[in-house]
Amino acid sequence: MLNKGMSDETVNLGFAALADPVRRAIIARLSRGPATVNEIAEPFEISLQAVSKHIQVLEHAGLVTRTREAQRRPVHLNPDALEALTAWIDGYRLLHEQRFRRLDALLAPDATPAPRKEPS
Amino acid sequence: MLNKGMSDETVNLGFAALADPVRRAIIARLSRGPATVNEIAEPFEISLQAVSKHIQVLEHAGLVTRTREAQRRPVHLNPDALEALTAWIDGYRLLHEQRFRRLDALLAPDATPAPRKEPS
Repeated sequence: MLNKGMSDETVNLGFAALADPVRRAIIARLSRGPATVNEIAEPFEISLQAVSKHIQVLEHAGLVTRTREAQRRPVHLNPDALEALTAWIDGYRLLHEQRFRRLDALLAPDATPAPRKEPS
Repeated sequence: MLNKGMSDETVNLGFAALADPVRRAIIARLSRGPATVNEIAEPFEISLQAVSKHIQVLEHAGLVTRTREAQRRPVHLNPDALEALTAWIDGYRLLHEQRFRRLDALLAPDATPAPRKEPS
């Protein structure tokens, strides 16, 4: 496997964290800059406690981190962890594409397009 | 949200499907070419039925498709669905990066690197 130094468990947690629309909306919010839990929770109709739990899932997956700044504990996006997940997907997607390009080259060495077959 | 035409449910299913190491190993296998369920199951120590269920999860998420070729029903990777998931992640990752580049430009207009502070 092309694992790019990530453990299976880290990849499991990362993708599982992204499989929820509230957590993805939190990622979208944090892409515009760090925010406190209260600021993040503001547009959601769910409880502050529920939002806080979603942030914990993202933090456990390494997708966000929390810092301490005076009285605030803003949540920050971790772009490296997001990049590691896209790198995992893209590794196999590109392998698949390369294979198809090689097949195309084998099947059409003179680059003449095959006549299109109409559906019957 | 930058949803690239995918429904929330499709994105949920896609990431949830990738949150399992067996399903990711199946994706890795299919990146090298289509394969039947028997061929896919071969390297795994789990039952054929369990592998078949994992393939159904991937199929339901749109990450793989099955075709009928004579007596075979090979499973194929769907690279477009994988690309849609990376596009989702990368949209927000790049937004975040652009924001940091703008902040850097504001904080260091003369491009002089700040002296490195040694840990005390």
